[in-house]
Amino acid sequence: MKIKEKVEPKPTRYLGERIQEANKLAVERIFSVEPTLIDVGTALKVIPGMTSNTILHAGPPIEWEMMCDPMKRAVCGALIFEGLAGNEKEAEKLLKTNKVKVSPNHHHDAVGPMTGIISPSMPVIVTKDSTFGKTAYSTFNEGGGKVLWFGAFGKETLDRLLWIKDVLGPTMKKVVAKTGGISIWNILAQGIQMGDECHNRHTASTNLLLKSIIEPLLSLDLSNDVILQVYRFIAGNSHFFLNITMTACKLAMDAAHNVEDSTLVTAMSRNGTDFGIRVSGLGNNWFISSSPYLLDALYNPGYGPDDGAPDIGDSSIIETMGLGGFAIASAPAMASFAGGGFQEALNITKQMGLITLAKNPKFAVPVLNFEGTPTGIDIRKVVETGILPSINSAVIHKSSGAGQIGAGIVKAPKECFTKALIAYGERYDLAA
Amino acid sequence: MKIKEKVEPKPTRYLGERIQEANKLAVERIFSVEPTLIDVGTALKVIPGMTSNTILHAGPPIEWEMMCDPMKRAVCGALIFEGLAGNEKEAEKLLKTNKVKVSPNHHHDAVGPMTGIISPSMPVIVTKDSTFGKTAYSTFNEGGGKVLWFGAFGKETLDRLLWIKDVLGPTMKKVVAKTGGISIWNILAQGIQMGDECHNRHTASTNLLLKSIIEPLLSLDLSNDVILQVYRFIAGNSHFFLNITMTACKLAMDAAHNVEDSTLVTAMSRNGTDFGIRVSGLGNNWFISSSPYLLDALYNPGYGPDDGAPDIGDSSIIETMGLGGFAIASAPAMASFAGGGFQEALNITKQMGLITLAKNPKFAVPVLNFEGTPTGIDIRKVVETGILPSINSAVIHKSSGAGQIGAGIVKAPKECFTKALIAYGERYDLAA
Repeated sequence: MKIKEKVEPKPTRYLGERIQEANKLAVERIFSVEPTLIDVGTALKVIPGMTSNTILHAGPPIEWEMMCDPMKRAVCGALIFEGLAGNEKEAEKLLKTNKVKVSPNHHHDAVGPMTGIISPSMPVIVTKDSTFGKTAYSTFNEGGGKVLWFGAFGKETLDRLLWIKDVLGPTMKKVVAKTGGISIWNILAQGIQMGDECHNRHTASTNLLLKSIIEPLLSLDLSNDVILQVYRFIAGNSHFFLNITMTACKLAMDAAHNVEDSTLVTAMSRNGTDFGIRVSGLGNNWFISSSPYLLDALYNPGYGPDDGAPDIGDSSIIETMGLGGFAIASAPAMASFAGGGFQEALNITKQMGLITLAKNPKFAVPVLNFEGTPTGIDIRKVVETGILPSINSAVIHKSSGAGQIGAGIVKAPKECFTKALIAYGERYDLAA
Repeated sequence: MKIKEKVEPKPTRYLGERIQEANKLAVERIFSVEPTLIDVGTALKVIPGMTSNTILHAGPPIEWEMMCDPMKRAVCGALIFEGLAGNEKEAEKLLKTNKVKVSPNHHHDAVGPMTGIISPSMPVIVTKDSTFGKTAYSTFNEGGGKVLWFGAFGKETLDRLLWIKDVLGPTMKKVVAKTGGISIWNILAQGIQMGDECHNRHTASTNLLLKSIIEPLLSLDLSNDVILQVYRFIAGNSHFFLNITMTACKLAMDAAHNVEDSTLVTAMSRNGTDFGIRVSGLGNNWFISSSPYLLDALYNPGYGPDDGAPDIGDSSIIETMGLGGFAIASAPAMASFAGGGFQEALNITKQMGLITLAKNPKFAVPVLNFEGTPTGIDIRKVVETGILPSINSAVIHKSSGAGQIGAGIVKAPKECFTKALIAYGERYDLAA
């Protein structure tokens, strides 16, 4: 009896219970969020803290000078789109003057995939959580080719951004209003049954979105030409739903943030230089490491790991919420990007079960007998097991402006979790 | 040496080789078929042997008197729709006079799900195989409710059939022409990746069809009202693609039919009374047994196995072609109708591999590491192993006209295969 008392000193045991309760609450908050796509707005008007000279970017905070080449290109492209600079040289000059502010999406209730650039006049998706009342924002996904989100820029980029602003945004605003709001979990839950892992594969979810919006699109007083343009743009981009998914996951994880004592990871994000995580019980601090390169990836012909920028984007909010890499068993084709097959996909999802706190009943994985997706990363479990969160990602060229050059799987760096655990120890005075 | 010669007498060995070659050829013919939805026509005008007083039905041949109640109801409904009878009593009277001919779809290059009724003025899907040049036909799927294919009939049935004839058929004829033809394997191959087994679940395939037809639908000179009606009808029925799949499978199996020596099953079909199969090397004979009841099924509240008619429909042409029940590993939710989970679904697909001749490279099953679906049932393997073809099916009420009351899994009766094997022995003089 005496020995037992010694190995379980009361204060520690007390904290253990507190952590368990806190994490339970945090997970409950994730599961109770009900995100609905309710509107389309202009970034400047709707995003908190947005100003006419702010450019939002993916990942933890970073100075202009420290940004990787594709992020820099995308920021310059956005400044040209905004009319704040005439060309890339002017844009770079402007960025050195401090007349332009760069700020992380995550600090403005926003998220963006890859470079994640949001500039003031871009139309943005407005997603609202009806449970806690919070709102999250993202751009419309630009699709493939020379696009800002892949750190590429050219005349076609500008033309597309203008079309998104002048045609897609206003049309989708009317369409979304007509639908009365689109439940995002509903579409993702079906997507998981239909081969999407809801990060790199959104084929089914995008089709389901199309199904939700065709009737409103047809019943609005729009020209056939506009209807066809909007339809073709969405139908031609299987990633269209990605940005929408991200807003929903952002809301779920923000709902679980700032729960005292909780060791739950509420954000993983990368700016192409740094990889950062936030933890529910540790406030708004980012725990940072160098962003990893994608070694387990399928590269376009002529490209390899040496050509890629480090991992980039806010899209890992999807894995933070238990989809994407955590749900890869539902989309084994995604494992093949990293040279694996079905068994590898199944193994990854099962492994993610070892570092998470719960199974999300909303997202039943058919090949796991409809068990929910592993959700809620616990920094303690990551450090204890050494199993790192698995993220499905894309690779963009590090310097040429070629845009996407591959796709694959990357593991979150352990250092972020170790740093967070140390900070947790200090914050909650674990020594005592 | 002498003993060896005795146990392998030359004539038998010779036949074994011939069977192997014949089956190889038959399978090659299945795999080389390229079915394209190319047109919509009127049954009377396009279906071979159709006359103004013919009603086509599912399954092997059957007399009016021997039909089950739901099949009878559907035949009567079709006669009323055709204006050949004013009500069900008149229709029944007419059927006893021999002024109306009932004939199996399979004898007219056609197929239909459940009761499978096709009457002269119905619009039909026209699917052509560009490899061998043959054509197959089916109706448009009516969806749920009081519908002929489920052996139900009422005013709403007539209204719907008239709308299909006057609006859906003519519109889809224009739409299909505008597309230049829709590749059916292409859609099914994607469907298999997206949780369809392509018989009881066509959710993804129907969405993919919608994706193929929205642009033509919008670019034709149609009223918005018609566009919306057609869109809603298709989007509101996840079985819409079923009949299209069936025409493609019919073409594939007809291409493999009449290969001398082959033991490959080229049709399995049920009329609600009998279950019949045809075999490639045995001409146009049907090998018949009583149609089984669906014991492994999920029934609507208030209904059970005692309420269902025996298994019915030409749709088992899908299993004959290696999809549906044979591809159930891609749609484990379908196994849950029969009380099973993912493992059961996987087991069924693996078992079907033991009675089939090949794996179809067009239809890669993700959870089997993208191995093809088991295709080409060999009557010898069924009889030898005792493993019976597994068919995903629906149940309709045996007498009340209530329509569908459940869905589940049924096994083809062994008797059909035994009879076929005996006939094969006689036909090819296996005694020698």
